Amino acid sequence: MKVAKQKSEELARLAALVRQMKVGMLTTTEPDGSLRSRPLETVEVDPEGRLWFFTQAHSPKSARVQAGDHQVALSYADPRDADFASISGTARVVRDEDKMRGLWSPRLERWFPRGLEDPDLALLEVRIDKAEYWDEPRRENVKIGTLTA
Amino acid sequence: MKVAKQKSEELARLAALVRQMKVGMLTTTEPDGSLRSRPLETVEVDPEGRLWFFTQAHSPKSARVQAGDHQVALSYADPRDADFASISGTARVVRDEDKMRGLWSPRLERWFPRGLEDPDLALLEVRIDKAEYWDEPRRENVKIGTLTA
Repeated sequence: MKVAKQKSEELARLAALVRQMKVGMLTTTEPDGSLRSRPLETVEVDPEGRLWFFTQAHSPKSARVQAGDHQVALSYADPRDADFASISGTARVVRDEDKMRGLWSPRLERWFPRGLEDPDLALLEVRIDKAEYWDEPRRENVKIGTLTA
Repeated sequence: MKVAKQKSEELARLAALVRQMKVGMLTTTEPDGSLRSRPLETVEVDPEGRLWFFTQAHSPKSARVQAGDHQVALSYADPRDADFASISGTARVVRDEDKMRGLWSPRLERWFPRGLEDPDLALLEVRIDKAEYWDEPRRENVKIGTLTA
């Protein structure tokens, strides 16, 4: 997982929590109005604080994002350490072969067995609109407004 | 945390995962259309598979639920064991003093310092509409339809 230098101390701490937990739960709004979460492994936090994941361009999750339901929530939890991070963001599906090659690692074959050869492989980018985290042992609840440039 | 006997093997496994992780991330839709998650400690999984939490009747989260945004998502994650559970449900705020007394424990003072004396203390009930979990080491993705009676 690549984590770039971040623009603020709060964003750096958020990125450190994401690196610690790696797998986030992405929540989207389904066509029937229900909310649905599923686990996704984070592969990058870029210098603008955006989070990157691999996805399949034709998965139901990508369909939600491509169909215009761009508002998503991402949460990261480590119940043993009582560390939690919550991100409200905007998602889009990106087909960028160079970026996919740069972020790919063989361990992702667990989720995407055909790897970079899969014509359906794509990236999901989440821009952070708001975020907050609960940081043990200080039990601080840190709220962050617009983090992106 | 109280966990009742469940009606099916899938629901029993889901309840066991909830007991293991205890703190879930509850996602609601905010008035501006964004999705927001926050951690909540589960205090009961009842015989009908409903999940119970303490809340404050006038918190923004309760306001979301009382205002009619009853569709919520709940996710439980243990990234070290790669265990994940996702629940799509319907939430309501319940003021039941007997039930609150039955579910209260002193460790909840961490979140609710005034305890049972707090006139704003209430319960949040989440009925499960759909759920799924990812069970290591078998890496099964088990989907559950309508679980409640």
